[in-house]
Amino acid sequence: MKPNVKIIDCTIRDGGLVNNWDFTVEFVQDLYNGLNDAGVEYMEIGYKNSPALLKATEPNPWRFLDDDFLKQIIEKKKTKLSALVDIGRVDPNDILPREESILDMIRVACYVREVDKGLELVQMFHDLGYETSLNIMALSSVPEQQLIEAFDMVRESPVDVVYIVDSFGSLDPKDIEHQVNKFQALIPNKQLGIHTHNNLQLAFANTLTAMRNGVVYLDSSLYGMGRAAGNCHTELLVGYIKKTTYEIKPLLKVIEERMLNMRETWEWGYIIPYMISGILNEHPRVAMAYRNSAERDQFVQFYDQVTTPESTPSPTSK
Amino acid sequence: MKPNVKIIDCTIRDGGLVNNWDFTVEFVQDLYNGLNDAGVEYMEIGYKNSPALLKATEPNPWRFLDDDFLKQIIEKKKTKLSALVDIGRVDPNDILPREESILDMIRVACYVREVDKGLELVQMFHDLGYETSLNIMALSSVPEQQLIEAFDMVRESPVDVVYIVDSFGSLDPKDIEHQVNKFQALIPNKQLGIHTHNNLQLAFANTLTAMRNGVVYLDSSLYGMGRAAGNCHTELLVGYIKKTTYEIKPLLKVIEERMLNMRETWEWGYIIPYMISGILNEHPRVAMAYRNSAERDQFVQFYDQVTTPESTPSPTSK
Repeated sequence: MKPNVKIIDCTIRDGGLVNNWDFTVEFVQDLYNGLNDAGVEYMEIGYKNSPALLKATEPNPWRFLDDDFLKQIIEKKKTKLSALVDIGRVDPNDILPREESILDMIRVACYVREVDKGLELVQMFHDLGYETSLNIMALSSVPEQQLIEAFDMVRESPVDVVYIVDSFGSLDPKDIEHQVNKFQALIPNKQLGIHTHNNLQLAFANTLTAMRNGVVYLDSSLYGMGRAAGNCHTELLVGYIKKTTYEIKPLLKVIEERMLNMRETWEWGYIIPYMISGILNEHPRVAMAYRNSAERDQFVQFYDQVTTPESTPSPTSK
Repeated sequence: MKPNVKIIDCTIRDGGLVNNWDFTVEFVQDLYNGLNDAGVEYMEIGYKNSPALLKATEPNPWRFLDDDFLKQIIEKKKTKLSALVDIGRVDPNDILPREESILDMIRVACYVREVDKGLELVQMFHDLGYETSLNIMALSSVPEQQLIEAFDMVRESPVDVVYIVDSFGSLDPKDIEHQVNKFQALIPNKQLGIHTHNNLQLAFANTLTAMRNGVVYLDSSLYGMGRAAGNCHTELLVGYIKKTTYEIKPLLKVIEERMLNMRETWEWGYIIPYMISGILNEHPRVAMAYRNSAERDQFVQFYDQVTTPESTPSPTSK
């Protein structure tokens, strides 16, 4: 296999989209220590968006990461820390130079139409000394020509890693291989990353396919905890990839002590409405709303709603 | 995709290994009608082993299929019916000629060392007019040379389909591609089938890979219901494969009305001890016993038990 791969565990960041970041400090500490002991290279500990710009009405330490707070609670070891930011939601004044920060990497999520803005942020984080990535979301619905134009800008930027993001969980291994080949041809000077969702139970297979085709940065979440159908499972990557520094036992401990309870309280994973939105290549927001309604288990009715043109809810929010 | 593929739904047969075939007649009827409406080509309705040879102490209609009983309860439509038999457990006197039976196909499961006996049964079923398959179990631990010798016999037999069976759920798409190529080279005169288990969340990906490499018969179970980690999900195949006769809605109905409750009562799917046995390429029996013990969620202890040589329980039963 590929001993140079790097796993970025996104449990707190993507899992926070499941439970509104309702994670205790103790849980985040246990997870950090477990990932470190397991040899996982990065932990994405949340979003570094601005509470002011998002008009937040209450504190949310993993959604609005604060360096002073993080330094108090995390005893930094080998596993690096990353944070995600969204276009238009980050305040440059919130970002310390890397040597003063506990964070090692800042990743920028954007849609293809905002790549210019995304790269502006990347440039700023790069100049502050951070490792950077650009995560182009909703890849499965990006028109080819837009991607080519975006990559003309990406090639010239200092971004370290460019991500293939299967936001809707609709791609299969053959699609992933095709995308990896395209990315490699268009931006040969960049390392690649992969971020998958498990709507069709293909997240692990897609991640393995990406790795075998040369992708280095592999996103995952412990026990798959991530929005809707969740992500590739960290324990599968650590258990399966032959890299001498990986050790599955510390992850089994966190799953046993923490994730089983979490899964009782919060819902993610292979669930029929998410499977349907994956097959239809659509954002899971409609399915997520349905799972929060009284009709949550009426799968036939859901299928009819999302496949009958006149009754499809028009998604307006991001 | 491949419009000539055929799905064999194994919910009753492989799912019966989860709940000792505790399926009501109404459930089996609903499932048959749902599969038929969905365009699924085959339903494996159970085992056709002999209750006398297995010293059965109570009736078990899906484990010991009886033609008269089946004719009473199933109104035969387009979906064909298949049954599985094991070596040494089938009484030739129980088998009617096909024109008198409701069954269309009889499949023979065997280990590679018993292929001669398996092909003897195949010959008998073939002579009685049935479609036949040979399902060589535990492929992931078969020595190459044994397989080559077995295939010398298979090539000369009248068997219609030869299965790649990932009994331990330990193979990945690359392994499947390798096996398919090997089978195609060694038995070019046979159609191929694939039967997967979902220990590593690779059952669907492995089945797609097999299909794209020319495998025609795809085993699956509704909502994945099968032994331990379960199988490739029938609804994923029907929803994903572009074949005009496939229709997912009838399956969503059965899942909604039947399988959700079933999953509350019985356990199958991605569960950590099954994941571990998949990674270790081992039969799930030890993990299944562990899930039936009081320590069922103590994953670290389970991992230690199965990876520490002196404490590994020695599996004795089949």
